[in-house]
Amino acid sequence: MTYCVAVTLDAGMVFASDSRTNAGVDNVAVFSKMYVFAAEGDRVVVMLSSGNLSVTQNAIKLLEEGQRNPRQKKTVMNAESMHEVASLAGQALRDVRNSNAPYMQESNIDPSASFIVGGQIRGGPMRLYRVYSEGNFIESTPETLYFQIGESKYGKPVIDRVIQRNTSLLEATKCLLVSFDSTMRSNISVGLPIDLLIYKRDSLKVDLQHRILETDPYFNMIHSKWGEGLRKVFSELPNPDWNVGTQP
Amino acid sequence: MTYCVAVTLDAGMVFASDSRTNAGVDNVAVFSKMYVFAAEGDRVVVMLSSGNLSVTQNAIKLLEEGQRNPRQKKTVMNAESMHEVASLAGQALRDVRNSNAPYMQESNIDPSASFIVGGQIRGGPMRLYRVYSEGNFIESTPETLYFQIGESKYGKPVIDRVIQRNTSLLEATKCLLVSFDSTMRSNISVGLPIDLLIYKRDSLKVDLQHRILETDPYFNMIHSKWGEGLRKVFSELPNPDWNVGTQP
Repeated sequence: MTYCVAVTLDAGMVFASDSRTNAGVDNVAVFSKMYVFAAEGDRVVVMLSSGNLSVTQNAIKLLEEGQRNPRQKKTVMNAESMHEVASLAGQALRDVRNSNAPYMQESNIDPSASFIVGGQIRGGPMRLYRVYSEGNFIESTPETLYFQIGESKYGKPVIDRVIQRNTSLLEATKCLLVSFDSTMRSNISVGLPIDLLIYKRDSLKVDLQHRILETDPYFNMIHSKWGEGLRKVFSELPNPDWNVGTQP
Repeated sequence: MTYCVAVTLDAGMVFASDSRTNAGVDNVAVFSKMYVFAAEGDRVVVMLSSGNLSVTQNAIKLLEEGQRNPRQKKTVMNAESMHEVASLAGQALRDVRNSNAPYMQESNIDPSASFIVGGQIRGGPMRLYRVYSEGNFIESTPETLYFQIGESKYGKPVIDRVIQRNTSLLEATKCLLVSFDSTMRSNISVGLPIDLLIYKRDSLKVDLQHRILETDPYFNMIHSKWGEGLRKVFSELPNPDWNVGTQP
């Protein structure tokens, strides 16, 4: 399983992805699910992946090799817009699926995979996309500031309650880490390390990239204080004053 | 969609179910998903249902008609143990599926349905079961005090953090209502009214049965105070002190 989330704010964008993959419970490994295509002053493109690892890795490989292939005109590094980048990511997913899916399905292996794609290219605005397994994609709008892929439900409520356009980058980062904490508590197939990337609007460079390991003091503080805080809020709510033992 | 949950505690049991059903977003209706079989001094059996409504309603109908059918020896009201009751519920699901599923599947309609079954029969202990769509079932143990069916993820974290064997019945009720509030906030196909039933260990009667409507002052208080409390806990957590704009 996987959990990835990206938010787009007035101040910039925050990306986060877990790094646990498993092919059965006896085959668990650490793979980063965050891929960065960046050239300072020109563009920052971040892709977060979920689904079948062989499909997403090979799709990324296609996108990377595109840069070195003189016959491929459009690449992530020369695309003129983020919309073109999302389209390239979708096409890469389609290409990998076309060549692999029939064989995978013969063994009942699910070939589905998807990307969150976000960033900014010089001269254009920040953009955030969700690219589906079939290669089609949607873009975030002012009403929907974030996309999640993978195990999204446990960590969604806190994002819905907190994130607004004017939330600061560091507060949004805190929110995503709380969201990861809730998810990892309920689904052991989502796990550390967490890859974090913060991008400031119009900076056209990676402003912060950080890997949260098990010893990370900030994440451990979030983990213990959030749990304590929830239990405190709960204990302060009064119980119902219904008289158990009589039918109301 | 549906959300139902039942917990078993030292003090007794609490059952809760939403009542929204939908066959497409243009066909939403209120149906109770809580069925009570009770005879004071002898037994209290509660069943919560999720899945295809025609399957669960007809399975319940089979169980009810069993009482009036002189040829049916074992019924919910004369079963000697909760284990027998769970087995009857599973058999009813199988019978309805056997006669309907082939026709439903021709139209790509999912015939799956399941029950939470709990209660106590005179001379025996309280028991809580989850009966699967195929009629097989599992029982809760001291390590697993609750079962959920339907849209379970949004409302699971608070139960995991709060419920213990020695939690009081009213505190557990409060916890389930917070769990419903989180679920309804994130999934509009789970909706009010909520049917609640509290059973005190060894009372052998329905100790409290209550329907939470939209005007319920206690539930509305929970809704607003829980949201406020979460935002307050979140705002009191410090932001990370990372310097955005420099690579660590």
